[in-house]
Amino acid sequence: MLSAVEYPLLDKVNTPDDLKKLSSSELERLCADLRSYIVRVLSTHPGHLASGLGIVELAVALHYVFNTPDDKLVWDVGHQAYPHKILTGRKRQFETIRTYGGISGFPKMTESEYDSFGTGHSSTSISAALGMAVAAHLQGNDSRNHIAVIGDGSMTGGMAFEALNNAGVAGANVLVILNDNGIAIDKSVGALNHYLTKITSSRTYNRFKTKIWDISGDNAFGQRIRRFFRKILLNLKSNFFKQSNMFEAFGFRYFGPIDGHNLPDLVKILQQLSTIKGPKLLHIVTQKGRGMDMAVQNPVVYHAPGEYDVETGERKLPSDKDQPLRYQDVFGYTILELAKQNLDIVGITPAMPTGCSLNIMMEAMPERVFDVGIAEQHAVTFAAGLATQGILPFCNIYSSFMQRAYDQVIHDVALQKLNVVLCLDRGGLVGEDGPTHHGIFDYAYFRPIPNLVIAAPMNENELRNMMYTAQLPDKGPFVIRYPRGKSVNADWKKPFQEIEIGKGRCLRNGKDIAILSVGHIGNTAMQAAQLLSTLGVEVGVYDCRFVKPLDESLLHEVVKTYSHIITIEDGVLKGGFGSAVVEFLADNGIGIPVHRLGIPDRFITHGSLRELHRECRIDVDAIVETVKNIVNEDFK
Amino acid sequence: MLSAVEYPLLDKVNTPDDLKKLSSSELERLCADLRSYIVRVLSTHPGHLASGLGIVELAVALHYVFNTPDDKLVWDVGHQAYPHKILTGRKRQFETIRTYGGISGFPKMTESEYDSFGTGHSSTSISAALGMAVAAHLQGNDSRNHIAVIGDGSMTGGMAFEALNNAGVAGANVLVILNDNGIAIDKSVGALNHYLTKITSSRTYNRFKTKIWDISGDNAFGQRIRRFFRKILLNLKSNFFKQSNMFEAFGFRYFGPIDGHNLPDLVKILQQLSTIKGPKLLHIVTQKGRGMDMAVQNPVVYHAPGEYDVETGERKLPSDKDQPLRYQDVFGYTILELAKQNLDIVGITPAMPTGCSLNIMMEAMPERVFDVGIAEQHAVTFAAGLATQGILPFCNIYSSFMQRAYDQVIHDVALQKLNVVLCLDRGGLVGEDGPTHHGIFDYAYFRPIPNLVIAAPMNENELRNMMYTAQLPDKGPFVIRYPRGKSVNADWKKPFQEIEIGKGRCLRNGKDIAILSVGHIGNTAMQAAQLLSTLGVEVGVYDCRFVKPLDESLLHEVVKTYSHIITIEDGVLKGGFGSAVVEFLADNGIGIPVHRLGIPDRFITHGSLRELHRECRIDVDAIVETVKNIVNEDFK
Repeated sequence: MLSAVEYPLLDKVNTPDDLKKLSSSELERLCADLRSYIVRVLSTHPGHLASGLGIVELAVALHYVFNTPDDKLVWDVGHQAYPHKILTGRKRQFETIRTYGGISGFPKMTESEYDSFGTGHSSTSISAALGMAVAAHLQGNDSRNHIAVIGDGSMTGGMAFEALNNAGVAGANVLVILNDNGIAIDKSVGALNHYLTKITSSRTYNRFKTKIWDISGDNAFGQRIRRFFRKILLNLKSNFFKQSNMFEAFGFRYFGPIDGHNLPDLVKILQQLSTIKGPKLLHIVTQKGRGMDMAVQNPVVYHAPGEYDVETGERKLPSDKDQPLRYQDVFGYTILELAKQNLDIVGITPAMPTGCSLNIMMEAMPERVFDVGIAEQHAVTFAAGLATQGILPFCNIYSSFMQRAYDQVIHDVALQKLNVVLCLDRGGLVGEDGPTHHGIFDYAYFRPIPNLVIAAPMNENELRNMMYTAQLPDKGPFVIRYPRGKSVNADWKKPFQEIEIGKGRCLRNGKDIAILSVGHIGNTAMQAAQLLSTLGVEVGVYDCRFVKPLDESLLHEVVKTYSHIITIEDGVLKGGFGSAVVEFLADNGIGIPVHRLGIPDRFITHGSLRELHRECRIDVDAIVETVKNIVNEDFK
Repeated sequence: MLSAVEYPLLDKVNTPDDLKKLSSSELERLCADLRSYIVRVLSTHPGHLASGLGIVELAVALHYVFNTPDDKLVWDVGHQAYPHKILTGRKRQFETIRTYGGISGFPKMTESEYDSFGTGHSSTSISAALGMAVAAHLQGNDSRNHIAVIGDGSMTGGMAFEALNNAGVAGANVLVILNDNGIAIDKSVGALNHYLTKITSSRTYNRFKTKIWDISGDNAFGQRIRRFFRKILLNLKSNFFKQSNMFEAFGFRYFGPIDGHNLPDLVKILQQLSTIKGPKLLHIVTQKGRGMDMAVQNPVVYHAPGEYDVETGERKLPSDKDQPLRYQDVFGYTILELAKQNLDIVGITPAMPTGCSLNIMMEAMPERVFDVGIAEQHAVTFAAGLATQGILPFCNIYSSFMQRAYDQVIHDVALQKLNVVLCLDRGGLVGEDGPTHHGIFDYAYFRPIPNLVIAAPMNENELRNMMYTAQLPDKGPFVIRYPRGKSVNADWKKPFQEIEIGKGRCLRNGKDIAILSVGHIGNTAMQAAQLLSTLGVEVGVYDCRFVKPLDESLLHEVVKTYSHIITIEDGVLKGGFGSAVVEFLADNGIGIPVHRLGIPDRFITHGSLRELHRECRIDVDAIVETVKNIVNEDFK
C-alpha cells in the first residue's frame, strides 16, 4: 500500500534522521504524503483520524527540529500520535494499528524508543515531561529538551494544572505545546476555552501572524536578523499578549499563538525555543481533521469515524436496521425518558457527550445536562453538591476514566450517602483501544466502598430498569456498569420495572454445575449453557445483576442445589465479582468448589473483543472447557 | 469550661442568629472570645489549632453577613472549621471534638445543618459549592449564596482548577474565598504561591488597603457613597490588578486582596459580594495561628500541636526516651540513609514533608526532594516520568490521599512497569481524623492492579528492609504501606537485609489454628497468641508481609499443618488481604475454613485507635474470641 510512486517523500523517511535531510519544500510535501497515507490506511483500518490530521505539520516540525529520541516527546492522550508513529520507524506496520498483535493506537514505551511515555488518558503529559526534565537535570544533562504536546481540552484536566504549578517553580527544561483546536473528542468547554478563543481572536494574534513572521521569513536574513528576531520573540509575550498572563502566572514563558499549519513558522519558532531554557509554553492554533473536508466539517464524527470511502470521506455505516441499540444509546434515550418524568434528574459528562450518548438529552434539555470538561474529579464532586440539594445527577463516566475520580466517589459521594447515579460506560474489555481503556478494574475498586450499590445489566432492558430503579427515592449512591458496543435485543423500549436492590435471577436451571455471572457476559454464559445442553450437560445459569449487595439468598439456594460453581465476569479476578462469591462462601463456612473465570492479573493488550475474550478465557469455549473438566473429574 | 465571665460574648452566641444581633465592637470581642476558647480547649483536647485561629474573623463575618444554613458554606479540607462549629450550635460539645462519640474534627453533614458539605481531603469545595449553586438555579432560587472557603495550598489541587474552569462558564452564584496564608500544613509551594505573593506585595494591594477602604469606613457615608463604593469595587479588579488575570481568565470576578483580620472590612466586602451574581473570587490574606504567638511563629508545628500549656503555648511532649520511633520517622531517616548510598533515589511528597518526615531528607539533600504541592495525581506521574530516565523516586502519600492518584498508579506506573516506590503512610485506621482519613481501602484498591508489589511491614526493621529491597535494581512498582504512630522496637537502626519478594515468615508455630496477618497488626496477633498460650491454646502466627504477591508456598504449608485459618488486617474485608487468601484457597480447591477479621463494610467514625479497633473487631479480644469460638465448636 505504501508505494514510492504515491508517497515519494514518505518513502524516503524511515526515521527522523531521514527527515532532517529534507529541504523545506520537501518537508511540506512530506506533510501532504502523511495526510494522504493516514486517510488512505484508516479508511479500511479504523482508528483515530481527525486528531492526527490536525498536527501533521507539528509532528514533522518536532522531529525535524529536535533530536528525538534523545529529546523527549510526550503526546498527551495520544490520539494524535499517528503521524509521529509513521515518522518513527512504524510506517509499514501502520496498517496493523489497533489490531491484535499490531501496533497500538497510543504511544507505548515498549513499542518504540521514540514513544517516551505511554498515554491514553488525558492530561498526564506535562507531569511526565517534567519528571524527565528533572531527571536530566539531576543527571547533569541540561541541554536535553522535553516536550509535552497537549490539547486545549486536555488542559482542562486538573492534573495538567498541578503540573504547570510545579513546573513553573522547578525551572526545568520543559516545552509545553498547547494544541488549540477548540475540540477534544467533543467540542471543548469551559472558561479556559473561552479564554483561549479570546487570545486567538484578538488583533494582536493576527498582527503577529502577518507581520512578525514576515520579517524573518524563508529568505534568510542572516545571523543578525535572527538575533533580533529572537529578542522580539522573548519580549513579545509580555508586551503583546496581556491576556496570556494565565500561563505567565504559572511561571511559564508564553509564546504564540501561531498558526500550527504553517510549517516554516513552526520550524523557526521551535528552533528558537530549543535554545531557551526553563519552562515555556507555545500556543499553536490548528484545525482538527485538516486536509480532509468532511473531517474538518465534522471533527466529532471524524475523531474515530470507522471505515469510510477514501475518495469522498463518506462513512461506511453498517445497516442498523433491526439491530439492537448500543448500550450507550439505550442509556441516552432512557435518561431523556426518565428526565421527562422525574424533574430532579440531570446529566453530567466530563467531555464525552457523544461518547456516552448524553448528547441526546443535551439537545432536548440543554439546561439539564452539564459537560464539565475533561474533569472526572470535579464531575463527581459537582454531582455530590447537586445531590445535597435534592437534584438527582446521572454522572456518566467511562469505567477506566472513573479511576480518576476514585477518591471523590469515596469521600464525597459514598461517605455522605448521596443520591448520585454513577453510570460506567465502557465497562469490561473495550477492544482496540487497549490496556489504558479497558474498564476491567471497576467491580474490584468499587466493591470495597461502603454504601455503594453496584449493578450491571445483562441487556438493554435490564439497563433501563436499573436506571429506572436508581432514580427512585433515596436509593443512595448507585453504580450502573455496562459495556461498549451493542446490547442484545432490538426491541429495547419496554415499560420500566423496578428491580429489587441486590436481587439476582435464575436464567436457566441445571444440574451439578451453576454458572454465576454479572452483566453482559451473562449472554456468553447462556450461549455456553445452550451449547453444553446439546452435548447433554445441563448447567444452571444465574444473572446476579448486583456485585454489591450480593444476592445472598440466591447464593444459599445455589449451593443447596449444585455441587460446583463457576463465576464469570469481564473484570479482573483479583477482588472482583468472583472474589465476592468466594468471600461469601468462606464467611458462611460453605466449602463448595468455585471456578472463577475473569481477567487474569496482567494488563491486557489491544485487539478485537473476540480475540481478547479468548486470550482472557472468558468466552464460550472457556466456559465449555471448564464445565467439561469438572464433569470429567467429578462425575465420570 | 465555657463560663459567661470568661467568654461574655461567646456566651451570648449559640447560633448565627445570635451573632446577627451583635454590634460591630461586640463582634470584635466575639472574635477574641473565640480565639481564647479554642486555645484553651485544644490545650487539653488536641486538634487542629492554627488553621482555625487564622480565620476567626472570616467565620464571624460569614455567619454575620450570610443567611446560613440557607446560604451554603463549604470549608475546604475543614481543618479551619472549628470557629464555624462553635458558632453553629456546637460550642458546648467542642470539648468532645475528635473523640469517640464526640463531634468530628471536620465538617460533617450529619452533624449539623450548617455543615453544608463534608470535607477532609483538599480542593473539593468549589465543585461542591458549584453543584449547590446550579441546584438552586434549577430550583428557581437565584438569590441563595454559595460560598467555598479554600486555602492557597488547596488551590493547587487539580480539581480546584477543574471546578474554576466549569464555574466560570456556568455563571452560577458562587463565591470562592481564597484564604491566602502561604501555608497549608507545610509551607505552600508552587508557581501559584509565587503568583499570589506577587499580587499581595504589589503597591496596588497596599493602596487598596489604605485608601479605598478608608473612604467607606465605619463612618457611614449613606446610600450614595455605598453605590459609589460598589461601582469602584466592580471596576477595581480590571483597572488595578492586572496580575489578577488568572482568576479573571477563568471567568471569575476577582476582588482583593484584603486583610482577612480586619473584621469591618470583611463584613463590608462580603455584604457587597452577597448582592453580586455569578462566580466571584475574594482573595483575603490571613495569618495562620493568629492570636497565639507560638502558632504564628511556627504554624507547621501548631497546625496540630497536641497538648500544650495554655498560658505559654509550650507543647507538652511525652518523653521519647527509649520509645520506638514513629514509622514515619523510620521512613524519614531510612530514605536519607539509602539516598546516600544510592544516588538515583529521590523523594516526592504532595505537600506533606513534615507529615511523612521527608523533611529529614529535604534538609540534608534539598535538590533531591520534591514537594509538588497538594497534587497527588501529578506527584505519581511526575515520579513515573523520573523513573523512565533511571531515577528511582520514593513517592510518599498518605493512604487515603493515594485514592486521588489511583488512575495515575494504574495508567502511568503499573502499566509501564516503572521502578517507582509508593510509600503509603497512615495505612489502616488513623484514629481521631476519622472516616475521610482512614487508610483502609489501600490493600483492596491496589491488589487488582497488575505488576504491583504490595508490602506492609510489621515493625520498623521490616520497614527498613522493605525500603532497602524496593530500591534494588528493577523491582518494578513497589508499594510499602505502614500505619500512623509508633513502631515496635526502640532499637531501629539495624543493618539492611533484602527481603525476598512475596516471602512471608512464621512468627510462631501452633496447632490447629493459624493466624495470618500482614503489616503492623501482626503485633496484635502475636499478643493474642501469647494470651491464648497462657490459656493453653497454641495458635500459629504468620506475618505474610506481602498482600501481593501472596506467599503461596507458605499458604500451602499452612493448610497442611492447620485445620483453621484466621486472617487479620487493618483494612477493609471486601477485596483486601483476607480476600486474597480465600481467593487463593478457592483457586486451589482447598476447602479449609477461614475466619476473616478486618474492617467491616461501613465507614468508620473517629476516635482513639483502641476504640476503633474494638469497634471493628480487630483487637486482641476479637482474635481471642474468634479462636475460642473455633475451639468450642470444633475441638470440644
